Amino acid sequence: MVLALNRDELQTFLVEVFPEVMDLYRVEALTEDTVQMRFKVGAGNLRPGGTVSGPAMFALADVTVYAMVLAKIGREALTVTTNATIDFMRKPEGGRDLIADCRLLKLGRALAVCDVLIRSDGSEGIVARSSMTYSIPPRR
Amino acid sequence: MVLALNRDELQTFLVEVFPEVMDLYRVEALTEDTVQMRFKVGAGNLRPGGTVSGPAMFALADVTVYAMVLAKIGREALTVTTNATIDFMRKPEGGRDLIADCRLLKLGRALAVCDVLIRSDGSEGIVARSSMTYSIPPRR
Amino acid sequence: MVLALNRDELQTFLVEVFPEVMDLYRVEALTEDTVQMRFKVGAGNLRPGGTVSGPAMFALADVTVYAMVLAKIGREALTVTTNATIDFMRKPEGGRDLIADCRLLKLGRALAVCDVLIRSDGSEGIVARSSMTYSIPPRR
Amino acid sequence: MVLALNRDELQTFLVEVFPEVMDLYRVEALTEDTVQMRFKVGAGNLRPGGTVSGPAMFALADVTVYAMVLAKIGREALTVTTNATIDFMRKPEGGRDLIADCRLLKLGRALAVCDVLIRSDGSEGIVARSSMTYSIPPRR
Repeated sequence: MVLALNRDELQTFLVEVFPEVMDLYRVEALTEDTVQMRFKVGAGNLRPGGTVSGPAMFALADVTVYAMVLAKIGREALTVTTNATIDFMRKPEGGRDLIADCRLLKLGRALAVCDVLIRSDGSEGIVARSSMTYSIPPRR
Repeated sequence: MVLALNRDELQTFLVEVFPEVMDLYRVEALTEDTVQMRFKVGAGNLRPGGTVSGPAMFALADVTVYAMVLAKIGREALTVTTNATIDFMRKPEGGRDLIADCRLLKLGRALAVCDVLIRSDGSEGIVARSSMTYSIPPRR
Repeated sequence: MVLALNRDELQTFLVEVFPEVMDLYRVEALTEDTVQMRFKVGAGNLRPGGTVSGPAMFALADVTVYAMVLAKIGREALTVTTNATIDFMRKPEGGRDLIADCRLLKLGRALAVCDVLIRSDGSEGIVARSSMTYSIPPRR
Repeated sequence: MVLALNRDELQTFLVEVFPEVMDLYRVEALTEDTVQMRFKVGAGNLRPGGTVSGPAMFALADVTVYAMVLAKIGREALTVTTNATIDFMRKPEGGRDLIADCRLLKLGRALAVCDVLIRSDGSEGIVARSSMTYSIPPRR
């Protein structure tokens, strides 16, 4: 299935839907079954030890999967996560942006499944991996 | 194993560690293997559709498990999540606080495992369930 | 919602659907939102170290959730697992049956979510916990 | 880190450890951070609808991750799964072998994390994806 939104349309739609948080994220690349998202690391996401918090990485994975699903099905803001798993494997490197690479594994009528690898910009080591299931609302 | 911190000590320590976010949370109850946390729902956590976002519920589950582990092992701020799973099952009710009930399933030397049920204050229906594994740092 | 099948009807249906494996399992108890399943531990399920294997515990959790869902919706053999998570926490005790306690957390039109705690018969310590999502086929 | 076992040594060790089940599996390929395992589909693994059961796919993912970890750390039969997640996405094709591709994401002192994609031999569509954490026993 081709893309319903291109990279610019996707970024624009995400800004409309999440005006207050999309300052933190940018869609870097988009193909028919992958999306790459940048998380601009800021002071607000730090926890003891000085790295990005787990919940902030969860939010990054979530917005990345949401972007992948929207890019395929179009502007459906009410698409929701039903299940998510995340493994935290390494401390992100201080002060570096995070890069999330999402791969679409299944796009069915009712459910989409993606996985995501997160690393610090400029590094190869995986900081976190996640898989998520999104529920797709029935067509109106 | 008895508790290393009582409810007030736990709340105080969480405020020290997360000064900016603990305005949103309050430890409601604590036993040897359960903790109940209240999330004071605010405008900053809303997403399309007007309910608490998935990442905000993930953060609630995470802080609740962290509180449970700290209550058992004492003031070890560097304890970290290694794995987390969350199922989102119902929309939270608008404008109501969320209540997270955590149960400690295992406390080993290196790992602790907990699960969490989240519901809207005053309702029975489960909004989300989560299980999390925390890594416990070796004693210095 | 009341039960579509009682305990005996459920056991009978499981034996019809899984004739070769239901020698290993028995429905011990059933309520409107819980089911208890016994796994009769046999030599075929042992792995290095002499305990029940992880995959055998996964299969126990899976059949228990399947039983819970069928008890609610009736004889729908094609109901399938879409997502499962399992944490292995302790070694089961050698030679003891395993007891799985399942709780129904959500029964929607399209998805059911349950969690399961597994322990050795006669012990309190949790051996494994699991949560599973089942897809419910549309009514014909 | 290089491999502790090559492909033939790995196959031989798995047969020693699981004599009764390794008739079903074969290590197809091994690199420093990937392993490919074939599951020879047989009548014993079918469930209603005629496809490989979920627990059989879980067992395939589990043995594949176990093989990956052993290939790195050597003959340590007591390495155990601590956490596993699996998403079932499509029905496997009837009568075809399953191919599991495992990628090592982290190999720490105490924990290893891998993910696995499973497909029917000769097809591209992903049947299931899994991620697993293995606990590595301390060196004696």
